[in-house]
Amino acid sequence: MKERGILTVVSGFAGSGKGTLMRELTSRYDNYALSVSATTRNPRPGEEEGREYFFKSVEEFENMIAADAFIEYAQYVNHYYGTPREYVETQLKNGKDVILEIEIQGALQVKKKFPETLLLFVTPPSVEILKKRLVGRGTETMAVIEARLLRAAEEAEGIDSYDYLIINDKIEECVETMHEIIKNEHVRAFRNVDFINNMKEGLRSLSKGV
Amino acid sequence: MKERGILTVVSGFAGSGKGTLMRELTSRYDNYALSVSATTRNPRPGEEEGREYFFKSVEEFENMIAADAFIEYAQYVNHYYGTPREYVETQLKNGKDVILEIEIQGALQVKKKFPETLLLFVTPPSVEILKKRLVGRGTETMAVIEARLLRAAEEAEGIDSYDYLIINDKIEECVETMHEIIKNEHVRAFRNVDFINNMKEGLRSLSKGV
Repeated sequence: MKERGILTVVSGFAGSGKGTLMRELTSRYDNYALSVSATTRNPRPGEEEGREYFFKSVEEFENMIAADAFIEYAQYVNHYYGTPREYVETQLKNGKDVILEIEIQGALQVKKKFPETLLLFVTPPSVEILKKRLVGRGTETMAVIEARLLRAAEEAEGIDSYDYLIINDKIEECVETMHEIIKNEHVRAFRNVDFINNMKEGLRSLSKGV
Repeated sequence: MKERGILTVVSGFAGSGKGTLMRELTSRYDNYALSVSATTRNPRPGEEEGREYFFKSVEEFENMIAADAFIEYAQYVNHYYGTPREYVETQLKNGKDVILEIEIQGALQVKKKFPETLLLFVTPPSVEILKKRLVGRGTETMAVIEARLLRAAEEAEGIDSYDYLIINDKIEECVETMHEIIKNEHVRAFRNVDFINNMKEGLRSLSKGV
């Protein structure tokens, strides 16, 4: 039997470079499976079923909620977004480290249901750089900037619930740090109860044999 | 001001290769400071004051206990062993990652006093290999083997209190894993409260400015 994979949730500020980071990580290492969300919003030009999202009708989505087929879901701007349970469970069972790129509300739902979930928060290296990225180059409308700031402020309030900060200064180093953290989660004592119990029993039976 | 170092306790089975591992780690990377214990036992041939141990009289040691000058201490076979506080505190303040190589009782004392301590347990990759190493090549007396087994069984009971298992299969990989784990402890959310609060305040003041 394969060792079960680690479930990792990645959240982060807009402009943190989270997207690039995830693409790099999953293209560089083959132990990862990136979960694809389901949504009731319409596909945008260039989006493909099963790549960006699984596109569902409201009825389909609500049937899935009723069947407990999501490990987390939420509503944003009148649309549902959720993480289908089946894909995640199958990949974890096959030993893949599954990554969910979701917002903080979803992250906390997942952590509550699966307390062994690893929570990573991607952030630029300083508040000054974060500000620059959020405000942009002066080409955005005030309304867009305000919405981003409110969202970032809301996200910041939840950072304490995460396990690690992924400080995205140099993307190269950042990808490796993220990979190391997830890889080394596999040797956390609480994830190796069978190994530990085996050691304990082996030593007990050996002591008796002496 | 330098970022405070991480305090790491390393324990492990006899024959786990812990000693080699520590020597490799500290010779390869310069961010580590290896704490030297104090003891009331006599120096053995080849041992140097301040390298293997700080050698103390019983009176000196007990005065240090009274002055709360140890972060942990214990008695084994009529001798005191302890970790002097001053060296550890100074090195941590200077940004060094301090490593204590101590037994489980000491490890739990340290964790209680300093809950942010990282606890690592070094183990051979399987109970079979552990058995072989403990029993040796048949050149040891029965009494020595029995004492080792009892000690190992006692240590095994405490593994659950540790944060990570350092599985010493290939020493090269094992050194790197240990280094990665300690390095990445620096970006744990709970160790970066100032950074997080700075982000929160920066975003709040920016929101007001819009």
